[in-house]
Amino acid sequence: MGEPFLAVDWGTTNRRVYLIQNGEVTRTERDDLGVTAVRDFDAAVTEIRARFGDLPMLLAGMVGSNIGWRLAPYVAAPAGAGELAANLLRIDAKTAIVPGVSTLAGGRPDVMRGEEVQLLGAVAAGLVPGDALLAQPGTHCKWAEMAAGCIAGFTTAMTGELFALLRNHGLLAAQLHGEVSANAAFLAGVEEAKQRDFGASLFGIRAAKMLGTRDDADAASYASGLLIGSDVAARLEASLHDTVHILSGPELGKLYAAAIRANGREAELIDSHAAFVAGIIAIESQS
Amino acid sequence: MGEPFLAVDWGTTNRRVYLIQNGEVTRTERDDLGVTAVRDFDAAVTEIRARFGDLPMLLAGMVGSNIGWRLAPYVAAPAGAGELAANLLRIDAKTAIVPGVSTLAGGRPDVMRGEEVQLLGAVAAGLVPGDALLAQPGTHCKWAEMAAGCIAGFTTAMTGELFALLRNHGLLAAQLHGEVSANAAFLAGVEEAKQRDFGASLFGIRAAKMLGTRDDADAASYASGLLIGSDVAARLEASLHDTVHILSGPELGKLYAAAIRANGREAELIDSHAAFVAGIIAIESQS
Repeated sequence: MGEPFLAVDWGTTNRRVYLIQNGEVTRTERDDLGVTAVRDFDAAVTEIRARFGDLPMLLAGMVGSNIGWRLAPYVAAPAGAGELAANLLRIDAKTAIVPGVSTLAGGRPDVMRGEEVQLLGAVAAGLVPGDALLAQPGTHCKWAEMAAGCIAGFTTAMTGELFALLRNHGLLAAQLHGEVSANAAFLAGVEEAKQRDFGASLFGIRAAKMLGTRDDADAASYASGLLIGSDVAARLEASLHDTVHILSGPELGKLYAAAIRANGREAELIDSHAAFVAGIIAIESQS
Repeated sequence: MGEPFLAVDWGTTNRRVYLIQNGEVTRTERDDLGVTAVRDFDAAVTEIRARFGDLPMLLAGMVGSNIGWRLAPYVAAPAGAGELAANLLRIDAKTAIVPGVSTLAGGRPDVMRGEEVQLLGAVAAGLVPGDALLAQPGTHCKWAEMAAGCIAGFTTAMTGELFALLRNHGLLAAQLHGEVSANAAFLAGVEEAKQRDFGASLFGIRAAKMLGTRDDADAASYASGLLIGSDVAARLEASLHDTVHILSGPELGKLYAAAIRANGREAELIDSHAAFVAGIIAIESQS
């Protein structure tokens, strides 16, 4: 299963370090030293090795972006672990950054950086079939069509960011601070989203308050259903898969699963940490 | 043509006063004393009469909202000048506020307050046919189906507000400060909007920057085309009219006209001030 190595899932606001020996995680630590909190990456990497051992290190995520350590390339989809391994950005003899993945399919450019490791790992670990539709909910939700274990194509939607913008600024902000759950109001939002008329559906949240047609305590769940439902409806229209495999924490995973079922497909939650580990092992083993 | 009276188009941030005699505007003044800048509405109205004459006064717009003077009712669509005149909120013997209009058509609640005067006036003045599709671009763009000179139904989209949110906050803000014009990038955004996949199209703006597929100076025009195009595509799908009559200033009017033509319909710009005056005269004459 190869020599021991260190894997770092290094995002914008968080970082997780894994010590991997004989194909298994023997130690892992998570902290809030995301790339925006780090100035001296050489020193940060030296500090990781001081704690975990002087081992080869494979880094993935925003550490390879223009706000990270060095700009790693994008590999054009379709891409598998072999293509990523062949295009590592080598910092020195024992340190490398995994490239991102890009696509221009359908005329709409798209990019990912970090998510590719989870996607490939989900297949490598046997958590999902080699041909499958995967979703990674979050600020920028990624949806990937996997084919023969490779990332065949993907789409990013600004679903989580739009919700945060609406919640913190503008006309609807005062209405959207309630709890969000997969309740009847959420499902009403998912249903409204099938209209594919986002800007008008949003104003309906305001109008419902003025006309008293919905308890305003439900506005946040409705808005979340509208946003997630818009994302789900557009993606399922473009995919024939019966099941969506969701890589995320349980809260957001439940909301996406409810929206997917309301659109007539099955949803399964997948362990995203296990997927990352399997993915980084697959890339390391081919590098 | 009736006795002289004062009409006030009193919005959130601006106010325009008209002195109307024998069916014509003989004097008008505009200032920035919108409802959010006024605390004592009695005093503000007394001050208007001190300048324009001690005449009957008809007020329209946000002055009748929960951030205005008094809460005027909503009249349910379909509504014409007669229904509005019959439901004035009378403050005293010579002062009244025009009600707003509401709808629950298609299960989506919607409201307007102030726009109804322009809509009815556009028909009353002969600027548009009695059966027509009208658009009032802005922060919250109103689209109204007129039938036999009445507001038969309408839809509000948060188009302008979404653009402002994206321009001032979040991931895309740094890209969206360029000039907006109805150029090739704008039309590319209008074309992309036909996908009805707003959250994914937005992320494409970011990806285009990362991959260098669009001059970033064009990002603001593209985003504007995406937003206005989303609004236009949804509204034209629901309407059979060949022509959209646009009530707005020339800048926003040009952008909407370009998006409407790119969606295969005609667009005509209408004088919104003339429409307001004709509308308020029509309501006053039936009150």
